Amino acid sequence: MLRQELKELTVSTRGRGFYECTEQISSIVEPSGIQVGVATLHLQHTSASLLIQENADPEVRRDLERFFGRLVPDGDKIFRHTAEGEDDMPAHVRTALTAVNLSIPITEGRLALGTWQGIYLWEHRLAPHHRRITIHLIGE
Amino acid sequence: MLRQELKELTVSTRGRGFYECTEQISSIVEPSGIQVGVATLHLQHTSASLLIQENADPEVRRDLERFFGRLVPDGDKIFRHTAEGEDDMPAHVRTALTAVNLSIPITEGRLALGTWQGIYLWEHRLAPHHRRITIHLIGE
Amino acid sequence: MLRQELKELTVSTRGRGFYECTEQISSIVEPSGIQVGVATLHLQHTSASLLIQENADPEVRRDLERFFGRLVPDGDKIFRHTAEGEDDMPAHVRTALTAVNLSIPITEGRLALGTWQGIYLWEHRLAPHHRRITIHLIGE
Repeated sequence: MLRQELKELTVSTRGRGFYECTEQISSIVEPSGIQVGVATLHLQHTSASLLIQENADPEVRRDLERFFGRLVPDGDKIFRHTAEGEDDMPAHVRTALTAVNLSIPITEGRLALGTWQGIYLWEHRLAPHHRRITIHLIGE
Repeated sequence: MLRQELKELTVSTRGRGFYECTEQISSIVEPSGIQVGVATLHLQHTSASLLIQENADPEVRRDLERFFGRLVPDGDKIFRHTAEGEDDMPAHVRTALTAVNLSIPITEGRLALGTWQGIYLWEHRLAPHHRRITIHLIGE
Repeated sequence: MLRQELKELTVSTRGRGFYECTEQISSIVEPSGIQVGVATLHLQHTSASLLIQENADPEVRRDLERFFGRLVPDGDKIFRHTAEGEDDMPAHVRTALTAVNLSIPITEGRLALGTWQGIYLWEHRLAPHHRRITIHLIGE
């Protein structure tokens, strides 16, 4: 019998960078008892992203940070929305270039992630923030 | 009892820019009576995007437009698919860099958007277009 | 009566480029008998993407490849995660800039794709790979 669940998760960040939340999300999916289904994750912000990326070598995340820092530089003179600081508009652009929601199938009671896939909250602002993720599960 | 609905929405654009459609989508979600569930939005085009972004300062959207205009310039000599004009291939690239589908949980009968999140149809072509969005709702 | 199905698809690539898999995915969706619902596709890798793009002129895909090749060049000195080769980290960045999951409504027993939309596995590595896609269907 198909059923659903809705949960909330808050990730507290210490400023720009990657915060792995695969374990926290799995600790919601697995106790639900849903064996087959789909998990929808939605981040309720416009200056941070949800990203599935390599979870082995941490240099991958540092390289991603370096690349995005060069592609969307803080303090770029092209931006006029600067009231909240030099990292404000770059954070919105980085979010537009990535994603705030993910849909991941559930199989054998677990997220159907690949061997090297981790789920990250990618904080784009320099200051610490509390980031809310809404998690919807459906399946049986 | 879980149930589903399927709707269509057409957004008529006046050329490149952001068209907020949060209200139009809410006016489909809320009368459905679904209290908890998930809404899947799919844009049936390859030269426009669906983007969740800041809905307060309109300068944010103008800055996004300026940034993407510099990142993917119209008339870039790298492009060979130019039969439909200088903005044709940049529109495809902007679409690839963003998204054409979104999955947003429903809670308390409404889309679980954050305070500052709005849903935008981002038209990338210079000319006006009619853009179709398919909306699937599931929940109870 | 709502029901669900879970399937797996493997796409074998011959190295960097676009591999259309619309037909393969349709050949899972259509026999399911689901008339209205939603298909969730999840690629279990971090160096390839799932992209919905124009399926008419193949020059569009070549232009996308040229643009991304310039935006995220192989061998860029900014990258330190280079153990697997000059195309390794660019493949992760290209994946971050695009998507590994898609949610597409089903209507009249078929994916609700627009006329010009095809679903592509975009291989970002230079060498051939076997890429796994998990496909979840729900509907009735």
